[in-house]
Amino acid sequence: MRAPGNLDGLFRPRGCAILGASTDPNKAGHQIVRNMKTAGYPGELYLVNPRGGHIDGTEMHRSLADIEGNVEMVVWAVPAPFTASAVADLQQRQRRHGDVRIVVTVAAGFAETGAEEGRRWQDLLVSTCKQLGIRVLGPNCVGVIDTGSGVDTTFIMGTDLQPGGISFVSQSGAVGAWLVESWAARPYSVGFNKFVSVGNMADVSLVEILDYLREDESTRVVGMYMEGYEQGREMARALDELSRVKPVVVLKVGESEHGARAARSHTGSMAGADRVYDGVFRQVGVRRARTVDELSATLLAFDQLPAPRGRNLFVLTQAGGPGIYSTDILAGDGEVEFARVSADTRAALRDVLPPFASVCKPEGHADMTAAASAVQHGRALETVLSDDGGDAALLLTVPVLFVPAEAIAEEIISAHHRLQASGIDKPFVPVLLSGDVVEHGRAALAGAGIMAPGRPEDAAKALGHVIAYHSRRRGDARE
Amino acid sequence: MRAPGNLDGLFRPRGCAILGASTDPNKAGHQIVRNMKTAGYPGELYLVNPRGGHIDGTEMHRSLADIEGNVEMVVWAVPAPFTASAVADLQQRQRRHGDVRIVVTVAAGFAETGAEEGRRWQDLLVSTCKQLGIRVLGPNCVGVIDTGSGVDTTFIMGTDLQPGGISFVSQSGAVGAWLVESWAARPYSVGFNKFVSVGNMADVSLVEILDYLREDESTRVVGMYMEGYEQGREMARALDELSRVKPVVVLKVGESEHGARAARSHTGSMAGADRVYDGVFRQVGVRRARTVDELSATLLAFDQLPAPRGRNLFVLTQAGGPGIYSTDILAGDGEVEFARVSADTRAALRDVLPPFASVCKPEGHADMTAAASAVQHGRALETVLSDDGGDAALLLTVPVLFVPAEAIAEEIISAHHRLQASGIDKPFVPVLLSGDVVEHGRAALAGAGIMAPGRPEDAAKALGHVIAYHSRRRGDARE
Repeated sequence: MRAPGNLDGLFRPRGCAILGASTDPNKAGHQIVRNMKTAGYPGELYLVNPRGGHIDGTEMHRSLADIEGNVEMVVWAVPAPFTASAVADLQQRQRRHGDVRIVVTVAAGFAETGAEEGRRWQDLLVSTCKQLGIRVLGPNCVGVIDTGSGVDTTFIMGTDLQPGGISFVSQSGAVGAWLVESWAARPYSVGFNKFVSVGNMADVSLVEILDYLREDESTRVVGMYMEGYEQGREMARALDELSRVKPVVVLKVGESEHGARAARSHTGSMAGADRVYDGVFRQVGVRRARTVDELSATLLAFDQLPAPRGRNLFVLTQAGGPGIYSTDILAGDGEVEFARVSADTRAALRDVLPPFASVCKPEGHADMTAAASAVQHGRALETVLSDDGGDAALLLTVPVLFVPAEAIAEEIISAHHRLQASGIDKPFVPVLLSGDVVEHGRAALAGAGIMAPGRPEDAAKALGHVIAYHSRRRGDARE
Repeated sequence: MRAPGNLDGLFRPRGCAILGASTDPNKAGHQIVRNMKTAGYPGELYLVNPRGGHIDGTEMHRSLADIEGNVEMVVWAVPAPFTASAVADLQQRQRRHGDVRIVVTVAAGFAETGAEEGRRWQDLLVSTCKQLGIRVLGPNCVGVIDTGSGVDTTFIMGTDLQPGGISFVSQSGAVGAWLVESWAARPYSVGFNKFVSVGNMADVSLVEILDYLREDESTRVVGMYMEGYEQGREMARALDELSRVKPVVVLKVGESEHGARAARSHTGSMAGADRVYDGVFRQVGVRRARTVDELSATLLAFDQLPAPRGRNLFVLTQAGGPGIYSTDILAGDGEVEFARVSADTRAALRDVLPPFASVCKPEGHADMTAAASAVQHGRALETVLSDDGGDAALLLTVPVLFVPAEAIAEEIISAHHRLQASGIDKPFVPVLLSGDVVEHGRAALAGAGIMAPGRPEDAAKALGHVIAYHSRRRGDARE
C-alpha cells in the first residue's frame, strides 16, 4: 500500500492563521473566522489583514511574519490579484519561524479561470510553497472540515456538524457545500468526520486525500464526488487499497456525452471516460451512487449499520403500494436476495401479524396490512431478523390515525433492543411515510441511533450497497 | 369519447352522512368528521351511530333513515361485520327518501382479505346499492378529497390542502396518503384539486374516475398510481382520451418480477404485464414517473408552468458540479434538446455574467461561476429565455455567503416579471441548494408562484416530461 503523505497540518494544525480575515460579515474572510470558532478550534487562531482592524474584539495582525505563536496552517482568503505581496509575507514568516505546513487556498481567480494571469498567480503561490516545504490545498476550494479536531476553514454557512464516521472528499466546492449543508440540517443531521474540497489540485490531490483517509482510524466510510482525474491508474490504485479497508461510495458525474463536455470545461476532466471509471469502480468494489440522496443515505448506512452476514433481505410493509415500490427498486438493482425464511418463522409471522396479512407471498415479503398495530411492527421485525435466513430488513409504514408514528418508532426501538439482547445485530432500515405527521417518529428513531430516511428508494439503495459491499468482502461466490 | 358517468354525488354531494361516526378520536369515524369540517364542507353534515352520543356538540343520529335533510353521500365507516344491519338502514333510507347517490366505503375487511365472509359482505353491500341505484366507491379505500367543493371523506391526518389544478387517483390508499401528506406539508404545499382512492373497485373503477377527470374543467393535470387493471383495453382507451385533453402522469409499480408478484397478492393485478403497460403509456402519450418525488414535481410542473413551444432547454448554473449532475439526467432521459442560442445571445450572456463564466461550452449550458451575483442570476435567465432558440430553462445555484438565497430568489422573481411584461411566457425551474440556508429563498419563490423543488433531479425530470408532452401535442416530427 502507498504510505499516505503527512497531512496532519491539514487536519490537526497547531496554530492557524486566517490571511485575508475580514471585518465585513459578507466576506469569506469573515465567515471562516466564525466557522473556526463554531467548530471549536482548540489551537491558537490568528487573524491577519494588512489593514489591521479587529473581529469580535480580536485584534488583527498586519502580517503573517508578525505572529509570535505557532502557525502550522494558513487559510488563504486573499484576493488573487494580491497573491504576490501575500506570498512575500509567507516567505518572510517561513524564514523567521519555519512553522507553516499547509496553505488552504480558499481564494478563487487562479488557473480555473483559464486566464493567463490566474495561471501565473497560482504558479507563484504553489512554486514558492514547494520551495518552502509547504503543502497547498486548492486553490479555488472551500477548504477542510474536521469535527474531531475542531477545524472548519470553509465559508459555508450552517456547518455546525455532529461528529461521526463519514468523511467526504469533493472535486466540486459547490457539491461539497450542498452535501455539508444537507448533512448539517436539523433534525436529521448526519454524523460527520472530515470534509475536504480539493479545488484546482495544484498540489494536494484527490488521491492523496483518499490515501490519508484509508489510514485515518476515525473515518469509517469514505464518500467522494468526482468529475474526472488525470492519473487514472493512481486513482484506481488508491480506490482499490481504500476499498479493501473501508467502504467507499462515489458520485461521479459526466456520464452523458453532454455532461462530460460540461465537466471538461469545469475541471478539465477527460470526456468519454465514464465507462472506464465505472469499470474500475466495479473491479475494486467501490459503490457508485447515482443521486446525492442515494449517496447520503448510503454513507449513513455504512456508518451506522452493522455488517450483514449475507445477502438475504426481508421487506416488511404495512402498506401494499410502498412495499411493491421498494421491492421493484431492490429487484432492479439486483444486489440483494429476497430472504427465504423457515416454516417456523412463517408460522410465527402469521401468528404475530393481523389475520389478513400476506406472509411470504412472494418470498422475503410480508404485507402486514394497515391493521398492523405498533406492537405488531416491532414483533414482525424481531421475527424476521431472528431467522437465520434473514440477514437484513427494510420496514415500510404509512402510519394511520390509530397507529401513530411515535408509537411505531417506540416499538421498533424496543425490538432493536430485544434483538441486541439476544446477540442479534443485523442491519435494518425503517421508513415512516410521510410528511409532517411522521416527523416525531423519525426524530425518535434518529435519537436512538436508527437511521430512518424519508424516502423508501434511499433506504432500498443504501441497503443494497451495504449488502453488496460486505458480500464482496466476504468473497461470496457471485462476486 | 366515452361520456363520463355521473359522479357529482361523489365530488359535490348535497348532504353527507358519516355512518359509523365515532366519539373516539383514534377511530377513522372520528377523523373523517374532522376532515370534512377542516375541508369546509358547505352542505349539511350528519353523524350517524346506532349508539347515539355526540361529537363536538353535534348530536348523532341513530340511523340513516332518521335523517330529515338531504343525504346524497354516505361515508361508510362501519366495521365489516356490521354490514348487514347498516345495509338494512340504507335500504330503509332509500325507501323513505330516495336521495342517496353514493356510498364511500372507507371501511376495510371485505374482499381484499381473501376471506369468504369479507367477499360476502362486499357482495351484499354492492348488490344492494346496485338495486337501490346507488354507486359505491371502495370498499377498502381512503375515500375522496375535493378542495373545490370542500369534501374530505378520508381519515388521513394533515390534509389541509391548498386548492390547485392537480387531481390524483390511486389504487393504493397508502400511496394516496403518502402523497397527500407530502403535498399538504408546509411550506411547500402543492395546490391540489381532487383525490380519489378506489380501493377494491367493486363498482366505481379507475377508468371511470379518469373519464370524469377528463371532462372536469378545474382539473388541469391528472396523476395516477396503479398496480394493474383487468380491463386493459378500457384503461388504454381512457388514458388515450384523457391524454389528448390534459397531461397524465402515472406511477406504475410491479415492474420487476418480484414486485409484480407482490402486486398480485396486493390488488390481484396480473404479473408480467409491465412491458405492455409501458408500451401503452408511450403510445398514448402518458408520462411515466419512476419515483414519487418525480411524480410530484412533474404534476406540479404541468400545473404551474406554461407550455413550452419547443424542446430546447438551457441549463444555467452558478455551480459546476450541480450543473453537470443535472445535465447528465437531462441527457440520459433524452427528452430535451440543449438549446442553441444566437451569437447575439452568447455575447449578451458574456456581457451579463462574471468575467470567467463559461458560456455555451457545451451548447445550452452556462456555468455562471460562484462569482455570479443575484442580479446576474436574473439577467442571465432573462437573456436565455429572450432568445428564440431557448424554450425552457433550468437554473441551479448553491447560494454562497455573499449572495444569499433570498436575494437570488428576488432577482429571479423580477426577471420573471420582466419576461412576462415582454410577452415571454416560457417554463423555467430554479433550484436553490441546499439545506436550511436556502429555505427563505425557496419560500419566496413558492410565494411568487414559481416552483422551486429541493432536488435538481426532480426539476430536470419534470422539465423533461413537460417538454416531451407538449412536443407530442404539437405533433413534432420526432414523436
